[in-house]
Amino acid sequence: VTAASELADYLGRLSALERVAGLLGWDQETQMPLRGAAQRGAEAGAVAAAIHGLASDPRLADLCDAAEAEGPDLRTATDVREARRMHARATRVPATLASELAAVTSQAQGIWARARAAKDFAGFAPTLAHVVLLKRSEAACLAAPGQSPYNALIDDFEPGMTAEALAEMFAALRPGLVDLRGRIAEVARPAPQLAGTFDHAPQLALSRRIGEALGYDWSAGRLDLAVHPFCSGRLGDVRITTRVDAEDPLGNIYSTVHELGHALYEQGLDPEIALTPAGAAASMGVHESQSRLYENQIGRSRAFAQWLYPQLTEAFGDVGLASAEELHRANNAVATGFIRTEADEVHYNLHVMMRFELERALISGALEVEGLEAAWNARFLEDFGAAVPDAAQGVLQDVHWSVGLFGYFPTYTLGNVYAATLDAAIRAEIPDLDEQVAAGEFGALLDWLRPRVHRRGKLAAPETIIAEAAGRKPEPAFLIAALERKFGELYDLG
Amino acid sequence: VTAASELADYLGRLSALERVAGLLGWDQETQMPLRGAAQRGAEAGAVAAAIHGLASDPRLADLCDAAEAEGPDLRTATDVREARRMHARATRVPATLASELAAVTSQAQGIWARARAAKDFAGFAPTLAHVVLLKRSEAACLAAPGQSPYNALIDDFEPGMTAEALAEMFAALRPGLVDLRGRIAEVARPAPQLAGTFDHAPQLALSRRIGEALGYDWSAGRLDLAVHPFCSGRLGDVRITTRVDAEDPLGNIYSTVHELGHALYEQGLDPEIALTPAGAAASMGVHESQSRLYENQIGRSRAFAQWLYPQLTEAFGDVGLASAEELHRANNAVATGFIRTEADEVHYNLHVMMRFELERALISGALEVEGLEAAWNARFLEDFGAAVPDAAQGVLQDVHWSVGLFGYFPTYTLGNVYAATLDAAIRAEIPDLDEQVAAGEFGALLDWLRPRVHRRGKLAAPETIIAEAAGRKPEPAFLIAALERKFGELYDLG
Repeated sequence: VTAASELADYLGRLSALERVAGLLGWDQETQMPLRGAAQRGAEAGAVAAAIHGLASDPRLADLCDAAEAEGPDLRTATDVREARRMHARATRVPATLASELAAVTSQAQGIWARARAAKDFAGFAPTLAHVVLLKRSEAACLAAPGQSPYNALIDDFEPGMTAEALAEMFAALRPGLVDLRGRIAEVARPAPQLAGTFDHAPQLALSRRIGEALGYDWSAGRLDLAVHPFCSGRLGDVRITTRVDAEDPLGNIYSTVHELGHALYEQGLDPEIALTPAGAAASMGVHESQSRLYENQIGRSRAFAQWLYPQLTEAFGDVGLASAEELHRANNAVATGFIRTEADEVHYNLHVMMRFELERALISGALEVEGLEAAWNARFLEDFGAAVPDAAQGVLQDVHWSVGLFGYFPTYTLGNVYAATLDAAIRAEIPDLDEQVAAGEFGALLDWLRPRVHRRGKLAAPETIIAEAAGRKPEPAFLIAALERKFGELYDLG
Repeated sequence: VTAASELADYLGRLSALERVAGLLGWDQETQMPLRGAAQRGAEAGAVAAAIHGLASDPRLADLCDAAEAEGPDLRTATDVREARRMHARATRVPATLASELAAVTSQAQGIWARARAAKDFAGFAPTLAHVVLLKRSEAACLAAPGQSPYNALIDDFEPGMTAEALAEMFAALRPGLVDLRGRIAEVARPAPQLAGTFDHAPQLALSRRIGEALGYDWSAGRLDLAVHPFCSGRLGDVRITTRVDAEDPLGNIYSTVHELGHALYEQGLDPEIALTPAGAAASMGVHESQSRLYENQIGRSRAFAQWLYPQLTEAFGDVGLASAEELHRANNAVATGFIRTEADEVHYNLHVMMRFELERALISGALEVEGLEAAWNARFLEDFGAAVPDAAQGVLQDVHWSVGLFGYFPTYTLGNVYAATLDAAIRAEIPDLDEQVAAGEFGALLDWLRPRVHRRGKLAAPETIIAEAAGRKPEPAFLIAALERKFGELYDLG
């Protein structure tokens, strides 16, 4: 037995426990009965402790040394690098803290959901304060010498990324977004709106057909409902969730398309290495590039509307739109809204930017939870020119902080930048992509992504994967240029 | 911090991981996509290894010593006893064997399901042979000096029980069952049969209404479909499964009632101690006594038919039965059938007896898997006077062996004996039970069971709990007497 194969077995066990933790989360969101919440915390905590135990075990460090001494191939070298990362993070965070965090965030999610339903931030604030306190402790433990606590959290989702680099990215985006938003607001042209009867069952049936068309393997996944849709799992078991609103079939469709982007990535990992770190998804930013590419660059294209429109009218009869072109305009309506997940492409990154700055302040201690709602509302008014009507449409709208996700939000915008960069390359290499999409053919797109992104796993750094796939360095300018092009035409901007 | 509370924390973590293992099983049976099976083996194996790690850790033995030195109360003394049991079992079985068993049985289940669908025992035999080999190794590791390997397996489900005692129980049952069965066969009176249209949705709706009436807490559970129905979970998250057959609504109803009996037990544990061993269900035999009591003594009573009949006709219209009395006769039709789970109360224990003897021989090595199908078919012909038509109706019908459950089957009959013993006591203490059941009132029954059985957990030995609850020692004679009474009347036996 080589050390490399022993290491692969060990990391396979660790990966399996991480999938179990993911399954507990999926179950909690989609299947678990109400009263199960009280004991689920202990279950999540016990699995987190088992993961922590494996990751912090000195044997893992020894296996890494031994595997490295064998002169490892790229796969094993990558496993060694990632195992060292996990080991460092696990040994820096005490098991008791990791376990408490898992237990508290598991319970916090239910409390958040109830507080959001009641539009009552005060009902969630003490719990969130507890989560923030634990995350500050965790971040302080994780931070390398000279590294800020918040950067230590970011690094968990986006290896090598920093708040400083992200702040630069946001700064590069901001003028263009603000300018574009202002010019569209001046035009003040209301987009067409859907009207009709949008029953639950045909919405889900349409979601399923879209999954089929995009290349989602239904024998390796399933679709369920969740308050805040997400994708969970890896390779042969990748589950997506969506939401259904009788007033808003597009909400269902684009939630589904977004999660399908994530799911196609996970289903498309290299099966030879997918169940150890080397073959896992590169980073959250790269993950989000896949969901955003499908949701925005593909899903909100004119060609996609041409494919979708007849399916909408077949499923729902009259939808209040006269043509695919009207659907395209409805899909790209630009308006100031309160909810990030419903935001258009122009406003979306402004939502993210604000969360990035607020959570950075929460972790540094510059902001406390008791001041969070006021800070949120003030910042929203400043950026969007509108007063938040209630906490459910404000500070309580996202699940992330309740489950301990800090440093995660900025990867959404990073994903948008990566997606725009990839899209520019894809359209150069598949000149008739729009014709294919309009005909419901998504195979060439997936064939392009599979070897260049999905199957590379973590075998290169996130930014390198995108840069090598696209043949160009990812830049905010690609995103701004694409938005200018699309919305300039749709809104007849000068 | 007392050693008792440290022990409780430790055992709480162990119990949480066991619930996670249970959830993986539930998910696999009810939710998991087909292609997830390949990686689920590693997930189940990793959780089993984590459980094994906690159970075998010398710290657990130290905690037991320390807790015992404190002069423990009954709860802690019980936790200590059970912790020592788990520790002994875990240290006797190597982690690699435990993990291989979990991985192999997880995969075996899918292979079994496909072989059953194809009625092809040969497609399952090599896998089952692998499982048997591993179980023999496990049993050999577990057996205490002088204990047979099979007894070591039985002890896991029914502490203190032996194959010898079970053989005695079966021997006491056999003449009465064979005699009763012979007399009923001579009468040769066909029972009324249901006829009608039994759609999926109203079957499930009726299952839900029955759950509601029996006292199942829907906020602490849910109902799903499974090939082989089971109940999973504890206290605040106890999930039941059922099957739906458009030809056979009674199959759905009695599967549901059976699993509800299990679920009421798990939901009714003492919440103060339910999440450590002290408060967990006493044994599989006691568990089965609860499901059997609800399924047979209550569910197949005339009073239950009086309550059920109008609900059946409301749900399905004409069901081909003229009265509640005809439904009662349909519920108690006695006939030689091939499938254990569809067997009547007279034949059921003959099915179990045969599995008990076959698996006892498989574990001892007196029988090999290659000879199992022939042995099954020969034994079936001998006991039931009928030739097994195919493997799906024979040796492949049960999931148990595929998932490594050996020593489990006999607890079904033990449960029947316990249930008959409890029933005799309940009817003496609640003289109007039949009137209550006929009116759909099941509260007094549950109130009787909760303190006497459910809330006692493992605080006394299984047989002691039944004996103290019933005020009499459990005996096969109670079962035979009740069957004679019911079927003597229904079939006008002399």
